[in-house]
Amino acid sequence: MKKYKVAIVGATGAVGNQMKEILQEHDFPIEKLYLFSSSRSAGKVLEFKEEQITVKELTPDSFEGIEIALFSAGSKTSKEYVPYAVNAGCVVIDNSSAFRMQSDVPLVVPEINPFDLKWHKGIIANPNCSTIQMVMVLKPLYDRAGIKRVVVSTYQSTSGTGWKAMIELREQCEAIMNKKEVNVQVYPYQIAFNVIPQIGAFLPNGYTEEELKMVNETRKILGDETIAVSATTVRVPVFISHCETVNVELKQKLTASQAKDILSSTIGVKVVDNPEDSIYPYPLMAKNKDEVYVGRIREDLSVPFGLDMWIVADNLRKGAALNAVQIAEKMIKLRLI
Amino acid sequence: MKKYKVAIVGATGAVGNQMKEILQEHDFPIEKLYLFSSSRSAGKVLEFKEEQITVKELTPDSFEGIEIALFSAGSKTSKEYVPYAVNAGCVVIDNSSAFRMQSDVPLVVPEINPFDLKWHKGIIANPNCSTIQMVMVLKPLYDRAGIKRVVVSTYQSTSGTGWKAMIELREQCEAIMNKKEVNVQVYPYQIAFNVIPQIGAFLPNGYTEEELKMVNETRKILGDETIAVSATTVRVPVFISHCETVNVELKQKLTASQAKDILSSTIGVKVVDNPEDSIYPYPLMAKNKDEVYVGRIREDLSVPFGLDMWIVADNLRKGAALNAVQIAEKMIKLRLI
Repeated sequence: MKKYKVAIVGATGAVGNQMKEILQEHDFPIEKLYLFSSSRSAGKVLEFKEEQITVKELTPDSFEGIEIALFSAGSKTSKEYVPYAVNAGCVVIDNSSAFRMQSDVPLVVPEINPFDLKWHKGIIANPNCSTIQMVMVLKPLYDRAGIKRVVVSTYQSTSGTGWKAMIELREQCEAIMNKKEVNVQVYPYQIAFNVIPQIGAFLPNGYTEEELKMVNETRKILGDETIAVSATTVRVPVFISHCETVNVELKQKLTASQAKDILSSTIGVKVVDNPEDSIYPYPLMAKNKDEVYVGRIREDLSVPFGLDMWIVADNLRKGAALNAVQIAEKMIKLRLI
Repeated sequence: MKKYKVAIVGATGAVGNQMKEILQEHDFPIEKLYLFSSSRSAGKVLEFKEEQITVKELTPDSFEGIEIALFSAGSKTSKEYVPYAVNAGCVVIDNSSAFRMQSDVPLVVPEINPFDLKWHKGIIANPNCSTIQMVMVLKPLYDRAGIKRVVVSTYQSTSGTGWKAMIELREQCEAIMNKKEVNVQVYPYQIAFNVIPQIGAFLPNGYTEEELKMVNETRKILGDETIAVSATTVRVPVFISHCETVNVELKQKLTASQAKDILSSTIGVKVVDNPEDSIYPYPLMAKNKDEVYVGRIREDLSVPFGLDMWIVADNLRKGAALNAVQIAEKMIKLRLI
């Protein structure tokens, strides 16, 4: 079996670190792994399969000879460096939002639209974390009953922002426990014991970037521009895993029991739904897990073909690093790299 | 001005304590204040207007001579003791869910349906905390444009459960910070750095009691059984204040700007909505405040007459104790007591 020269760009970040972990766990066919970061983190030594790898500073020349590059260093870095990688003949799987809505860039969740990988021109975009976990559950329902409208509210963890935010949550908690002054740096307000209804910058229509990602990416992944989505994205004082309340209005009736059956046989989705025993998903349950968890599946009393659901997933894994690695694995399987 | 003999039942609880505080802040016309609790807390001495009051154990005979009783000791206590209070000639304002949906019991938010106080038969029910803050914002929009459907998701603080839950959140955080074992007693799972999608017991249709309270109480308070409501209620690791994402489908168009104007002139509601400067409400902002805060008001792109909003209020104050005291004040003003 062919082995590949693989790079992780943003290797010292929360998602980059998970990418390295998952490549190892999955025994991805690697000939050599290259780790890149900004100059600030360059020089760090990270372990991969008992090998010590020094993180190098990302430069325009970094991609020579590399076949697959997993980018997770933010939109700005992707916009600047992905073109160099593509020019060097590298296939780029980009976790940032830089190219997601470009019409010549596939936006892929391998369980949902692997066929879109075939028309890639060097870049495959990895969707937004909140979008991935939602479409994993919506897709099988869409296939059976069609979707008219989705109203989603999120409960997103600090790891979605990165290490600094996770540390800030912890330090703020410690300060409050010890009656010391609380430092606020990463978010506009204290996140410990608080909730912040802003993820990403605000747009003129009052929605945030994150909210419109959930609208636009859902349509692109499901390949249906008619799906109406209303999203409110909110940060909660949790370290890992995002939660979502999802109210979906189908085009045809599905009972809660039918929806549970459909989702129980969906690869990558785990139904955890036995409310009478308080069995439902929550962030600590989904942490470090690959599956997207869904529970509290019930028939919405407020519209004819409505369902209410509660979706939880590890935002660093299926929401980011795992999906990116799965894209690479699927491309190998489809002989696209 | 007449002064009243007033009792607080559940005086040592989180809401009972706030009732006492608000009676004092508002300089409520009190001749004598009586504090009652279960036998477990009886004997405690609490301060009211520089007077030391000993908490007494609640008995069937407790209400003799008392004119107004504020109950906040849970449904079970209300079901058992409210009839004794009513028989003793007392007007009861009950914060539990025991009588809320009884057709001969008014369910009142004084800013919204004070006229319902007139037909009371001894009991006035104080609505659920999550419902109060939502209807405070919905009512003026309903009056202008009608409401077809509401989809609400909540982010509820531990104080809604009571002191024990607030202490458990704190102790779990301390245990995690100090790498000690986490004790779980109040909630089915750890609440620190976690999110729990259950408030109240589950009903056969998969909704929780709290969720159906939001459906049924909203209709009763607004006096319109045609309003469709879908609710998901969720506990978050916050001490005080509940948040809600509210997606409302109106019967007629209101622009975001019109909605802001309407809400800005609504007594008891405070619009905090300047997203470009990250100005929006959050739990720490609303804590210890009387107003219901609303922000992130925007036109929903997914239905013709939709609005999205973010509503935050101190659940112990307007969500419970303040509303109960305001009911008593309104009854005095209307010469109903």
